[in-house]
Amino acid sequence: MYPGALELCDDAGLVSVPEGFDLVVTTDAIVSGVHFFPEDDPTALGQKLLRVNLSDLAAMGAKPFAYTLTIALPTSIGDSWVERLSIGLKCDQVEFRINLLGGDSVSTSGPIVLSATMFGLVSKGRFLRRSTAEQGDFIFVSGTIGDSALGLRAVRGELDSLADSRHLKALMSRYYLPDPRLELGQRLVGLAHAVIDLSDGLAGDLMHICTASQTGAVVELRCLPLSVAAKTVVEADPALLRIAWAGGDDYELLFTVSKSACAEIALLSDNLNLQLTPIGRICDGHDVKFFDWKGQLVAGLSGWVHY
Amino acid sequence: MYPGALELCDDAGLVSVPEGFDLVVTTDAIVSGVHFFPEDDPTALGQKLLRVNLSDLAAMGAKPFAYTLTIALPTSIGDSWVERLSIGLKCDQVEFRINLLGGDSVSTSGPIVLSATMFGLVSKGRFLRRSTAEQGDFIFVSGTIGDSALGLRAVRGELDSLADSRHLKALMSRYYLPDPRLELGQRLVGLAHAVIDLSDGLAGDLMHICTASQTGAVVELRCLPLSVAAKTVVEADPALLRIAWAGGDDYELLFTVSKSACAEIALLSDNLNLQLTPIGRICDGHDVKFFDWKGQLVAGLSGWVHY
Repeated sequence: MYPGALELCDDAGLVSVPEGFDLVVTTDAIVSGVHFFPEDDPTALGQKLLRVNLSDLAAMGAKPFAYTLTIALPTSIGDSWVERLSIGLKCDQVEFRINLLGGDSVSTSGPIVLSATMFGLVSKGRFLRRSTAEQGDFIFVSGTIGDSALGLRAVRGELDSLADSRHLKALMSRYYLPDPRLELGQRLVGLAHAVIDLSDGLAGDLMHICTASQTGAVVELRCLPLSVAAKTVVEADPALLRIAWAGGDDYELLFTVSKSACAEIALLSDNLNLQLTPIGRICDGHDVKFFDWKGQLVAGLSGWVHY
Repeated sequence: MYPGALELCDDAGLVSVPEGFDLVVTTDAIVSGVHFFPEDDPTALGQKLLRVNLSDLAAMGAKPFAYTLTIALPTSIGDSWVERLSIGLKCDQVEFRINLLGGDSVSTSGPIVLSATMFGLVSKGRFLRRSTAEQGDFIFVSGTIGDSALGLRAVRGELDSLADSRHLKALMSRYYLPDPRLELGQRLVGLAHAVIDLSDGLAGDLMHICTASQTGAVVELRCLPLSVAAKTVVEADPALLRIAWAGGDDYELLFTVSKSACAEIALLSDNLNLQLTPIGRICDGHDVKFFDWKGQLVAGLSGWVHY
């Protein structure tokens, strides 16, 4: 049993941080009707809550170890809903080797609010940041993007005519269960210059790096990695391409590395069995510019992103 | 500027825990319509949110240093409400020397939910707990109890005929702005056996200590310390006495010490200029028993407490 958990019956939880490590803390909340549907499976919700927080730790290069939980529930919520939420939390506690340190449960007259604060460890002074991109850096993205944004449309039944159920299921699964890139984040420590996780959408999140680093960036849209499922629906309806590019909630890592480190990134991709795709470069200026297949500037992609 | 705050623009905040210290973490949420009135002053709400969390740290003997914040706000909330909340938070950041480490702001279709996770430091292995009361210990309570519970009735206008406005104001102020006993908590390290902060009410919280410590307790009701304002309204309406005793939200510390430490507690009370009152003893068994002026057992006080 985790020592800190012994203190669950006390007023607060206890965290022992080993020498030579910094503690990284992140907090994210999800609200019914805003971030999820009231009818969503509570087991998956518990997992998603933890995973969006874990993704923030991945972007810092931290190894997660514990979390606290605050839930605001309407009185109409039954015990079985809470039980199923708890199963989702416990599944991912095992999956990601994290422990529940304590929390608070309150009642509300409004929609469900689930909030977690996640704790991770990183070697002292070695954490990854957004603000350290350098001109000339190559910009990489992990995995594929757009699956979650398209998955949300699939959940709403908007893509039923565009692809078979296997592809739609694949997209929905990425929407319900993001896969935080924890191992990648830890391996990028000392290798990447700047890192962020993709939650707001590619344009917005790359802009966060550029603003913090006082740089600009160019991105080749043809390089953006799409999954087979995403390609299938986008080919059936090309208007969905912008949603794939900019829809957000990917929980992939976007990172920049020097040219000399690119070979190491290729090795890392093999080691982790995870696609790591170069999509552009960091440059001077303060804009993020997107270029299409023909080398034409695509305007309005940043502006289009929902925040 | 606090180093961790530099990371506010990153995905997570950074906490450096000095060698020889443990990190103590607590989380508490408050919901509009449940824990506060929608028309309450947001400045005071910001302070109350921090203070109920600080009170948990006080009960662990920890020194607070930072917090994270999650707020779920309806879209109808205006900028000026948020600005006033922020003023309350900033006031107490200065008052208690704590720093905002990061947070999340989400929208909700329901009532306001404010949640904070508070971080404190305590010397390694020296934190105070609930589970270490010993038979024969004297039970002490800090300050006065009942003010907050009576203050809530005063806010509702239920006590208008019972006392003058000065007394009612004093009670209301205790309801709106609890005073976390941080210095007392830190001074109790190595001195008290078991500590808890009074949030659920005296009977319930003392029961928490007894359950965790596998002991019983007896309390002399005549010893319970009431403020002048509380005495005034209770004399005007004796039925309010039970509310004063058991209403909760006092955020005073309830602690147990050996007989030999009682003299030191008296000194501490002088040093801190804070009333520390012996109200009973820890004994065998597993019940909390309350005795009145005549030495008669008062039944139902525990059962009466709202949880």
